[in-house]
Amino acid sequence: MSTLKLDLQDYKDLLKEYIRTKDEQALYQAEQFSKHSMQHNISPEEIINTHIQSMQDLFPDLPDDIQSAMDFLLETMVSYGLAYQEHRALRERQL
Amino acid sequence: MSTLKLDLQDYKDLLKEYIRTKDEQALYQAEQFSKHSMQHNISPEEIINTHIQSMQDLFPDLPDDIQSAMDFLLETMVSYGLAYQEHRALRERQL
Repeated sequence: MSTLKLDLQDYKDLLKEYIRTKDEQALYQAEQFSKHSMQHNISPEEIINTHIQSMQDLFPDLPDDIQSAMDFLLETMVSYGLAYQEHRALRERQL
Repeated sequence: MSTLKLDLQDYKDLLKEYIRTKDEQALYQAEQFSKHSMQHNISPEEIINTHIQSMQDLFPDLPDDIQSAMDFLLETMVSYGLAYQEHRALRERQL
């Protein structure tokens, strides 16, 4: 639980930094974050969920339409999340 | 190429419908869209890319910060896209 909270804070900090600087180095941190997340078996829809929570924290007055669009995107990731879990199971069987 | 263009148009239409209605039925279409996309080996970062293009079409005056946030999210999905391709390869080997 505390690990997931830490990840959310990390993601939010990295996202905030990229929005502030628009710097390639900050963007590179996104890649590092996802590699780290994959090592901890975080699925793609959990990343989207973390993104949504970070956006709500960083932009408390986010328009309803933008919020709805993110909810829609989250829903598309559910199937990919299941495929990702299956991928992990297959890999573990092969190792 | 034309299939991908069609998918973008489909996604945009479904997203627009959900934003307009906030209806559960429209949200369910997101799940169907992703299942269909997975059958056509579309990776998760392609979904994010389609989402970004749809948002730019639907909201031409999207604030820079929101655009940057989506670019950051796209970057986090690159590693997941690679894992998804690997998953497909593993599955094909097992079938």
